[in-house]
Amino acid sequence: MASPLNDPGELFAAARAGERSAVARLLSLVERGGEPARAVGRLAHPDSGHAYTVGLTGAPGAGKSTLTSALIGHVRSLGDEVAVLAIDPSSPFTGGAILGDRVRMQDHATDPGVFIRSMATRGHLGGLALATPEAVRLLDALGRRWVVIETVGVGQVEVEVAGKADTTVVVVNPGWGDSVQANKAGLMEIADVFVINKADRKGADATRSDLEQMLDLSDLPPDAWRPPIVATVATEGKGADDVWQAVLAHREHATSSGELVRRRAFRAAEELRQIVAHRLGERARELCTGDRWDTIVADVQAQQRDPYGAADEMLAGIA
Amino acid sequence: MASPLNDPGELFAAARAGERSAVARLLSLVERGGEPARAVGRLAHPDSGHAYTVGLTGAPGAGKSTLTSALIGHVRSLGDEVAVLAIDPSSPFTGGAILGDRVRMQDHATDPGVFIRSMATRGHLGGLALATPEAVRLLDALGRRWVVIETVGVGQVEVEVAGKADTTVVVVNPGWGDSVQANKAGLMEIADVFVINKADRKGADATRSDLEQMLDLSDLPPDAWRPPIVATVATEGKGADDVWQAVLAHREHATSSGELVRRRAFRAAEELRQIVAHRLGERARELCTGDRWDTIVADVQAQQRDPYGAADEMLAGIA
Repeated sequence: MASPLNDPGELFAAARAGERSAVARLLSLVERGGEPARAVGRLAHPDSGHAYTVGLTGAPGAGKSTLTSALIGHVRSLGDEVAVLAIDPSSPFTGGAILGDRVRMQDHATDPGVFIRSMATRGHLGGLALATPEAVRLLDALGRRWVVIETVGVGQVEVEVAGKADTTVVVVNPGWGDSVQANKAGLMEIADVFVINKADRKGADATRSDLEQMLDLSDLPPDAWRPPIVATVATEGKGADDVWQAVLAHREHATSSGELVRRRAFRAAEELRQIVAHRLGERARELCTGDRWDTIVADVQAQQRDPYGAADEMLAGIA
Repeated sequence: MASPLNDPGELFAAARAGERSAVARLLSLVERGGEPARAVGRLAHPDSGHAYTVGLTGAPGAGKSTLTSALIGHVRSLGDEVAVLAIDPSSPFTGGAILGDRVRMQDHATDPGVFIRSMATRGHLGGLALATPEAVRLLDALGRRWVVIETVGVGQVEVEVAGKADTTVVVVNPGWGDSVQANKAGLMEIADVFVINKADRKGADATRSDLEQMLDLSDLPPDAWRPPIVATVATEGKGADDVWQAVLAHREHATSSGELVRRRAFRAAEELRQIVAHRLGERARELCTGDRWDTIVADVQAQQRDPYGAADEMLAGIA
């Protein structure tokens, strides 16, 4: 029997009652994957579907955490609650309730309307691509209406995870081109809002022209959303309100145009496809061990079966 | 009904009767994969298990084809027959009975004791990793006792394919280090015999010292096979007999030490594992389309099922 401290049902009830350590524990279960994560998912699912997700990505050092902190401050000033998931694929053991190294985020550590959590996979075999939507559904079911998904870098995983939000904010700096050259196209593709952070530095105007030009070249249809470009100095809190305004404008456009429904539908199908592929991969690993496997391999080695016939037999009733 | 020209059974009978164009057609079926390839496999399997395979790999320009041609000449002078599969993963449509661009190999084009065939995947979804052993089994069943698997480059696929032979020959040139830097470790790992081709060029001695030193560092146990280093000038046919002698010596060692049996057993298990994984992948692609899939995705989108429960349902009876 699961200890009460790790029983998903009891943790879920405690989290609902406002116990923050229970939320942290539930997210740890999601990170670890397996049956406990699925139990959390079954509990969360019926009450999810109400949160709006904002992805926030950009090169290391672009000021994402500082901007996120400023956004939290702004959202709280509007009276809304917010949860932040900081996704760090490079760290297998980031876990913990509060990001100790993120000084500015600690400003919000004692605010019950804010929940901040760093996330890695910690053994979830489906990786962050599967763990992140599960974590979002949990926070959603616990009543968070805004979930910010901040990713730590601009690699493929980060762009993939941030790009699956309802609105994606790409943070760049003056002279950004060089630092993200390798993934510029990927960032252009997922951006719904561009933020030029550290806009008080030299080159901010050139960066804006650069972005405008790329948007011109991308040949958007007349009724499509054209990502606005917002200048911020996050360390001073400047521009956070404009960023949030741009997020709300995109949400409005995505909702009225039907784009939000299409995007969520695509995401649901994509997640299901990944779960199916992942489950079959697990099944293959299970099949290729054990006595039955050893016997069949021995038969193939002894030329008593051809390998494709042997595979058919392994997979009888399965594939 | 399959046309007689493409019916695996009739082609197999014709190939057995010595019709070379039938062999070429059977290999084309193997390259394309799917049910016809499996039919060829079922025909070939009972009579296979007698061929000895020699893998031959090295950087482009190392002189592999020229050396292969010289080896063919030597093997024929001993009265043996030989088949050559030239594996080219970069070319999706290399296929054809004889390699027109390989002038030296054409020396053997009219010799009924030699069969040369270039191979790519041409649609075999399992790739060359699965198509190559199928092709080898076919040539084996058609009575070829020596099958040389020559790979065109030193990428991961080439090293993987060549490294699955009974004896693997790695061909280098004086000053080889730079050209294969990226995959030196991979080549060291699979080599049973090293050939320094173009050994009349400057730097041959240094290359030999280099290889000897790497072998010293690899810390082989006292009774293990230490790859001999053979110098050749393949364009002049020089050293081909020494290479073949080294292959035969390795075969003798592998046979008497039990290494050959272990290697083949490992290979059989590995192939079976790849077939199982490949088949499950195909099944996943099938499952994630069609009416049932659309209905389940719609339910997930409408929050009527959680995605993991939906995946369970898709996979009911499967995984």
